[in-house]
Amino acid sequence: MLLYNSQVSGNCYKVRLLLAQLGIGYERHELSVVDRSNRAQLLGELNPGLRVPTIVLDDGRAIAESNAIIYYFASGTPYLPHDLYERAKVLQWLFFEQYSHEPYVAVVRFWVAFAPSPPSSQEIEARRATGYLALDAMERVLSRQRFFVGGDYTIADIALYAYTHVAGEGGFDLERYPAVREWLARVADQPGHVTISA
Amino acid sequence: MLLYNSQVSGNCYKVRLLLAQLGIGYERHELSVVDRSNRAQLLGELNPGLRVPTIVLDDGRAIAESNAIIYYFASGTPYLPHDLYERAKVLQWLFFEQYSHEPYVAVVRFWVAFAPSPPSSQEIEARRATGYLALDAMERVLSRQRFFVGGDYTIADIALYAYTHVAGEGGFDLERYPAVREWLARVADQPGHVTISA
Repeated sequence: MLLYNSQVSGNCYKVRLLLAQLGIGYERHELSVVDRSNRAQLLGELNPGLRVPTIVLDDGRAIAESNAIIYYFASGTPYLPHDLYERAKVLQWLFFEQYSHEPYVAVVRFWVAFAPSPPSSQEIEARRATGYLALDAMERVLSRQRFFVGGDYTIADIALYAYTHVAGEGGFDLERYPAVREWLARVADQPGHVTISA
Repeated sequence: MLLYNSQVSGNCYKVRLLLAQLGIGYERHELSVVDRSNRAQLLGELNPGLRVPTIVLDDGRAIAESNAIIYYFASGTPYLPHDLYERAKVLQWLFFEQYSHEPYVAVVRFWVAFAPSPPSSQEIEARRATGYLALDAMERVLSRQRFFVGGDYTIADIALYAYTHVAGEGGFDLERYPAVREWLARVADQPGHVTISA
C-alpha cells in the first residue's frame, strides 16, 4: 500500500496516526505542500482534487480525501462505532472539520508557517477569526464530554486533533480553551499514538 | 421527524431529494439564509455549526451536516453501495463536494442571487474561477462514466447535483461541460426525483 504524503500536512497525519494505531504498514511517497508542479502527473489518475493524502491500495485502487480514507480503514475497528446514529455523528464531525475548521485553522497555519508568499496580515487575521469559531464550538462540546462521539476515542477525534494540536503554529491561542487542551492530552495518551513528525 | 430547512439551499435540497426518493415523510421548519439572527436560539443545542440542514429524529436526537444526513438515511438502501471500497468512493466525492465545490459554486450563487451586500466583482470572479476547477474535475470523470460511483445513481450524485444544477444562477456557464449536462439530465430522470422548489 502506498500513501502519497506530506509530512507537515495534518490531513496526511490523520491517515498516518490511524494506520499506526491499527498496526497497518505502508510505503510513503513524499510530496511538497509548496511546490505542486508535479501533482497532476503523479495524482491525475488517482485523485480529482490532486491533493495529499491519496492512498493506493495493494490492488491499485485509490482513495482520496483524508476523512474518506480514515473512515474506510476504521470500518470494523474500535475507531468507528457500529451504531448507525453514532456513525452519523462521526461523519457530522468529519464534515464539520473539513468545512468549518480545516479551511481556517489549517490554512492560517500554512500561511504563517509554510507559505512562501502569504496574503496580507488583515486577510490572515480575518481567517483566524473564523478559525476561532470552530475552536469555540469544540470547546462547548468538550466541556461536556471526553470525546466527540459516544464516550470513546474515534476517527472524529483523530480528524479534529490533526490541525488543532498544531494550531499554535498558525498563531491561535489555545490557552483560552481548557476543555480542548485536556482533550488534546487525552488523544495524545491513546495507545499507539504517534506524533505528526513520526 | 423535523427538518430545519431553507428552500433555496442546495445543502437542504440534498436531504429533501433523498427523503422524497426513499418515501420518508417529515415536517419542515423554514429558516432564512440571509437573516441568521435566530440560528443560535433554534439550533444551538442541535448543531455546533448553526447551519441548515439540521434534522431532528423522532426520538429527539439531531444530525447536522448535509452529507452526514444523507449518508445516514441512504445506509441500507440502493442509494449507498454495500461494498466497502465503493462506500469510500462515495465519501470521497461527498468530501470533494464540501471542500472543493460547495465553497465556490454554492457561495458564488449565494453572492450573485441572494446576498444583500455581496463582495466586489473581482472577489466573485476569483471564487468563480476556483468553482470552475471543481466542474472541470467532474467533467473529466463524467466523460468516462454515467454516475460518480459504481455505475449507479448514489448519494454522491445527489450531493454534487444539488449546487451544480443551479450553478447558472451564480453565473457559471455549463455549456462547456457536455458530460456534466448529460449527467444532470440522468439525475433528474431518476425515479422519485423532485426539484429544488418542491
